[in-house]
Amino acid sequence: MSARDLLRQIVEDSDTKAGRLFDLVVQTLIVLSIVSFSIETMPRLPTSMHMWLEHVEQALVTAFAVEYVLRFAVARRKLRFVFSFFGLIDLVSILPGLLALGIDLRSLRALRLLRLFRTLKLVRYNRAIARFHRAIGLAREEIVLFLCATSILLYLSAVGIYFFEHDAQPEVFASVFHSFWWAVVTFTTVGYGDIYPVTAGGRVFTSIMLFVGLGIVSVPAGLVASALSKARDLDE
Amino acid sequence: MSARDLLRQIVEDSDTKAGRLFDLVVQTLIVLSIVSFSIETMPRLPTSMHMWLEHVEQALVTAFAVEYVLRFAVARRKLRFVFSFFGLIDLVSILPGLLALGIDLRSLRALRLLRLFRTLKLVRYNRAIARFHRAIGLAREEIVLFLCATSILLYLSAVGIYFFEHDAQPEVFASVFHSFWWAVVTFTTVGYGDIYPVTAGGRVFTSIMLFVGLGIVSVPAGLVASALSKARDLDE
Amino acid sequence: MSARDLLRQIVEDSDTKAGRLFDLVVQTLIVLSIVSFSIETMPRLPTSMHMWLEHVEQALVTAFAVEYVLRFAVARRKLRFVFSFFGLIDLVSILPGLLALGIDLRSLRALRLLRLFRTLKLVRYNRAIARFHRAIGLAREEIVLFLCATSILLYLSAVGIYFFEHDAQPEVFASVFHSFWWAVVTFTTVGYGDIYPVTAGGRVFTSIMLFVGLGIVSVPAGLVASALSKARDLDE
Amino acid sequence: MSARDLLRQIVEDSDTKAGRLFDLVVQTLIVLSIVSFSIETMPRLPTSMHMWLEHVEQALVTAFAVEYVLRFAVARRKLRFVFSFFGLIDLVSILPGLLALGIDLRSLRALRLLRLFRTLKLVRYNRAIARFHRAIGLAREEIVLFLCATSILLYLSAVGIYFFEHDAQPEVFASVFHSFWWAVVTFTTVGYGDIYPVTAGGRVFTSIMLFVGLGIVSVPAGLVASALSKARDLDE
Repeated sequence: MSARDLLRQIVEDSDTKAGRLFDLVVQTLIVLSIVSFSIETMPRLPTSMHMWLEHVEQALVTAFAVEYVLRFAVARRKLRFVFSFFGLIDLVSILPGLLALGIDLRSLRALRLLRLFRTLKLVRYNRAIARFHRAIGLAREEIVLFLCATSILLYLSAVGIYFFEHDAQPEVFASVFHSFWWAVVTFTTVGYGDIYPVTAGGRVFTSIMLFVGLGIVSVPAGLVASALSKARDLDE
Repeated sequence: MSARDLLRQIVEDSDTKAGRLFDLVVQTLIVLSIVSFSIETMPRLPTSMHMWLEHVEQALVTAFAVEYVLRFAVARRKLRFVFSFFGLIDLVSILPGLLALGIDLRSLRALRLLRLFRTLKLVRYNRAIARFHRAIGLAREEIVLFLCATSILLYLSAVGIYFFEHDAQPEVFASVFHSFWWAVVTFTTVGYGDIYPVTAGGRVFTSIMLFVGLGIVSVPAGLVASALSKARDLDE
Repeated sequence: MSARDLLRQIVEDSDTKAGRLFDLVVQTLIVLSIVSFSIETMPRLPTSMHMWLEHVEQALVTAFAVEYVLRFAVARRKLRFVFSFFGLIDLVSILPGLLALGIDLRSLRALRLLRLFRTLKLVRYNRAIARFHRAIGLAREEIVLFLCATSILLYLSAVGIYFFEHDAQPEVFASVFHSFWWAVVTFTTVGYGDIYPVTAGGRVFTSIMLFVGLGIVSVPAGLVASALSKARDLDE
Repeated sequence: MSARDLLRQIVEDSDTKAGRLFDLVVQTLIVLSIVSFSIETMPRLPTSMHMWLEHVEQALVTAFAVEYVLRFAVARRKLRFVFSFFGLIDLVSILPGLLALGIDLRSLRALRLLRLFRTLKLVRYNRAIARFHRAIGLAREEIVLFLCATSILLYLSAVGIYFFEHDAQPEVFASVFHSFWWAVVTFTTVGYGDIYPVTAGGRVFTSIMLFVGLGIVSVPAGLVASALSKARDLDE
């Protein structure tokens, strides 16, 4: 077995002890990077802490760069790796430190955690993901239909509430765009309380739209769940 | 093939290239109309923008009027087209510009986007819609029962909370109608925070009603989802 | 056929034209009573309106009293009718006008609308209600288990948040009872915004409990829905 | 039958009358303890009430200590009982009174109520719990996948909203940790209203993330429900 084959086994596979250790180290570094990035945003951090976090970040970027080079080196099809989902995410993970573009994409490193599923019990989770794909396939038409219906419902609700509430609250329901924000917050049942109808007409309209709307908005999640359970049946 | 047949193929069908192009142009105009209508409602728009939007609107009304005439011309049964769902929506789309009634129905143009499903992969979406009809048919009695139970629950909760909270918050829970608004906002779990109980009795009452109520209010969506999955099974 | 049999057919059955008409009149009166009761609670009603509503109420109580006497007269088993669900609701509907107890039970008249299901398409809705009973029976143990788990979860969350937030917000999280109200409002996802954690510890605790809790709180509704769909399968 | 066997029958079993009575007394004492603990936290309690509650607490700790000794005495495998779930909870229930550690674990007594299921209709609830275990087993991969996806979604949403809102509301969206609290409150649809986006960018971002996110966050509950219904089918 050549040195490259050995390296490939460590970097790409997770069947051997060395391969699992490599994966574990990388995953730990990603979590560390997420934590350090989050701490960095805290207000009133002492300067010493800032400097310390900068050192951590530099070390992490170096480590991730080394990892990227290794992955590139052992990849059988170089181009395919570079433009794959994980290849792009890996690249984005090391760019901010190298390029200092102003836009901070370090948080996207979290997506690399998805590799975790390749580390642990490969087969079972791959089958679960395949089932999920099949479930989406099974219910695709219904999901698309309901998403379109939801979009039209949100738009018509936004326009409706605009006509009812604009005169009473010209600052809050300032335009159809503001009303659309109200529609999103209301039909997802988040209801922050920053924008709500106060007129009798607006409240009656909201009540009616909610009764119709919740039946439409909450169905897709149920569809996904029952399609997943169906996909599992087909799998057995 | 006569000229009318050719026109019909373009306007009504979406199997030919010309037909698909026609549909695409109309759909684009509808989206443009939705965007322009929404921008129009924004506060503090410059006058030049207002004028520009008015020109866009006039052009759109003209285009939609031409489309309506074309659809009417190629329709095999004129009366049936005029009084069909899409026929009426098409008519409403061009009325505001023509009649200037004060009531603005332009937002209903969004409903015309539903024609999209006729454009793309006709058969599959028609079958999905048919399945949806069948699903509603399968669970109709349960849905009607739960909607009636929900209405009575909302009314009794509104009256109950009125008695608990009216004395403590005479301005907020001013009447059973105000309480009904509270019931809608609470049982849909939107919870804006504009109206909520503050007395111990009102809170205990709300807690009990929520436990009973959420079991009633959230069941219909689950019923629709499982009926849809059943309808799909029957379909295969 | 005796006069009593004829009367029974009108009052109890809904197969004959007269029977359906009787039911329709009673249902209309109930709706009228609900509307009139709700209007009565509105603030700043003119005195003339108050007097008018009082006349309506007196007429309605008289009508309901006559109905009760009729139902009692034609009932085959008098005692059983008096103590049946609808018998008691019917009695409660006419008591406030007769006794003027201070407690106003007129809103319970809304429950009489449930008789509607006896009026329209009897068999199908009776079968739906039977299915609902069977569905509850199918999933009873799971529902009881989840309700108990929910209660304990709410109590432990209330105690936990009390320890985290009491010192920071002694007026808001004043006691475990106040915290329990927070737990109800949070785990039902209503979230009025009258009471929420502000400390870091309270927010971490809330996040963890929500992740565990929503998996427990929202399962019963799904159980009812899938049991209903199962009951329907058994029915066919 | 020896005295210890008789005692075991009373303390551990719930088939005999004496066993059921013992269970009932213990459960009543637990409920009493929960109520007394909750009342203790109420502000402005008179001193006499405080003293009274202290006496109740002392009596309860004594009773629970006697119960613990009894359970320990009749246990066939002493060590296994001490380190079992209920053994530990039982111990924790009597520690605060004995040790006065400052940390108050009395609320955990509520968990002892779960023994209730052993008291009433043992077999059926044990089977329901077994079904629940099996259901979790059936859908484990999917649930783990969705929980991981939810965590990553919450983190990326938190970072995203931080960039959109930090400049506009530096006090509210002070750090990624504050944003994470926003993400939890939003994606669970609780929406207290203490923290929400105000910029156009933040609102568009929230709308998009909610559409994607609610499809992810609400699926696990549906999965549990349909797995439970599946586990029940396998059981029959």
